Amino acid sequence: VLGIEAVLPNGEIWNGLKALRKDNTGYDLKHLLMGAEGTLGIITACVLKLYPKPSTALTAMIAVASPAESVRLLGTLRDAVGDRLVGFELMARNTIAHTLAIFPNMQEPFAAPYDWQVLVQLADTVVDAPLADTLAAALESSLDDGTILDAAIASNETQAAAMWSIREHIPEAEKRRGKSVKHDIALPISRIAEFITRANAALASAFPKAEVICFGHVGDGNLHYNLSFPGSAPTPAQTREANAIVYALIDELDGSISAEHGLGQLKRDEIVKHKSAAALSAMRAIKAALDPHNIMNPGKVI
Amino acid sequence: VLGIEAVLPNGEIWNGLKALRKDNTGYDLKHLLMGAEGTLGIITACVLKLYPKPSTALTAMIAVASPAESVRLLGTLRDAVGDRLVGFELMARNTIAHTLAIFPNMQEPFAAPYDWQVLVQLADTVVDAPLADTLAAALESSLDDGTILDAAIASNETQAAAMWSIREHIPEAEKRRGKSVKHDIALPISRIAEFITRANAALASAFPKAEVICFGHVGDGNLHYNLSFPGSAPTPAQTREANAIVYALIDELDGSISAEHGLGQLKRDEIVKHKSAAALSAMRAIKAALDPHNIMNPGKVI
Repeated sequence: VLGIEAVLPNGEIWNGLKALRKDNTGYDLKHLLMGAEGTLGIITACVLKLYPKPSTALTAMIAVASPAESVRLLGTLRDAVGDRLVGFELMARNTIAHTLAIFPNMQEPFAAPYDWQVLVQLADTVVDAPLADTLAAALESSLDDGTILDAAIASNETQAAAMWSIREHIPEAEKRRGKSVKHDIALPISRIAEFITRANAALASAFPKAEVICFGHVGDGNLHYNLSFPGSAPTPAQTREANAIVYALIDELDGSISAEHGLGQLKRDEIVKHKSAAALSAMRAIKAALDPHNIMNPGKVI
Repeated sequence: VLGIEAVLPNGEIWNGLKALRKDNTGYDLKHLLMGAEGTLGIITACVLKLYPKPSTALTAMIAVASPAESVRLLGTLRDAVGDRLVGFELMARNTIAHTLAIFPNMQEPFAAPYDWQVLVQLADTVVDAPLADTLAAALESSLDDGTILDAAIASNETQAAAMWSIREHIPEAEKRRGKSVKHDIALPISRIAEFITRANAALASAFPKAEVICFGHVGDGNLHYNLSFPGSAPTPAQTREANAIVYALIDELDGSISAEHGLGQLKRDEIVKHKSAAALSAMRAIKAALDPHNIMNPGKVI
């Protein structure tokens, strides 16, 4: 986002629709309004920076023994292929299995079921870039040292679409199985593996009949980490307990309880337990200064 | 910058040292403090995202007839080579010529002097990536349709260093020739050519004995655009007049009077003429709310 236009709480229209990559002329009002969920003003227009459409793309499914290996693979691939790596989606075995059970027309590329799989997407602006060769070369050392167990590189668009279809149908399969306590969380990439191991163990012990559905964008440090209660919906007490377990671990590992979805009213009171007093008082001071009558999306965020 | 730590005006230390790519939990204090030049708090630590070191690099000097052709070339290269394009430095003929005159050991790669030249840098994480072939293929259509006049691709590191040396010695050469009225400006990339044409004409007419020194990072829309007064330093009246000509055009073309260097005290009063009342009043409200006693870098920015 290069620029935005917004109606401010005092009724003024701020025209910040600049198409500039660099502009060091005072406070960054654009980033302040973005993500404020309308509580500091209503964004009415924006200028987006566009990127060239890739000419070449490649999809692969890669099997790993655990999330720790997926993080190691991410580092290897970023070193080797750089910005060509545009997707890196981790999926747990049970999460894949439920999706395949509910959508029986889907097929995974491996004969053997692996505990964890990563859907990898590469892209290049260069026409006919040899992405399959580049990926195969990048994966060699990971196969040798056991970081990865298996790899299937899509050889055409149909195979690529089949791999993506599994990933894209996870939320729908989860929904059809029952209600979940959902978490859209972020972690430092280096703590993802520890988080999954410890959170899985704590939740298995607290909720022996529930099941963790885990998938996410490892390159962004962003996991969808949900506790699924097949058959019966989680009670408010169960939801509170599951949240408490997950959020305590996120705090310990310096993560975030909302990576993508924001606070809204659902997490407005919760965030007070996780953000520092310094950050909360700065946020309240800014809200009071820009919207003294609290007319902008009241009751949300703050 | 993924996270920062800062001492806030009320004496609290805000620990925002998170290593997260995504964190949607309230107002973006990090971006608010970054670029505030210390007027909202003192940044005492930060977390940086690192990128893999490129394994392969390539430098080239490309001749174009005018800035408009350089912008067209930028678009062609971004489409063709994508994120491999990591440097795109435009230089005017007189700016190169002065540098070569003051540093006579330097040599440009072309026998004929061209009016404008672009120093292009490509990089790739892939080992032994065929960057010269990729660039040559990307330049083919630009040579055919006349967008570029000539191209010299460095065939080793010595040649690459010689090309970069010309660019890097421009500021020193400018300084040795005399005093300048300096402008560190940003423009939408699509308005760069119009800006240079019109500003050059207006300044040549107002200051027949002075000379424009123009070079910059076209990919960032960022120009160093200085009016050089060889022999005698510009008077305060000349400085004001040169600024007025340049800044009026920047306003008309939706640019910024400070791309990289900030406002400090030099541009604190000037910015009031260029920013909207809505933005200025929001900035003042934030400053008053977070630093009511004006103890943080007083007299700067605002």
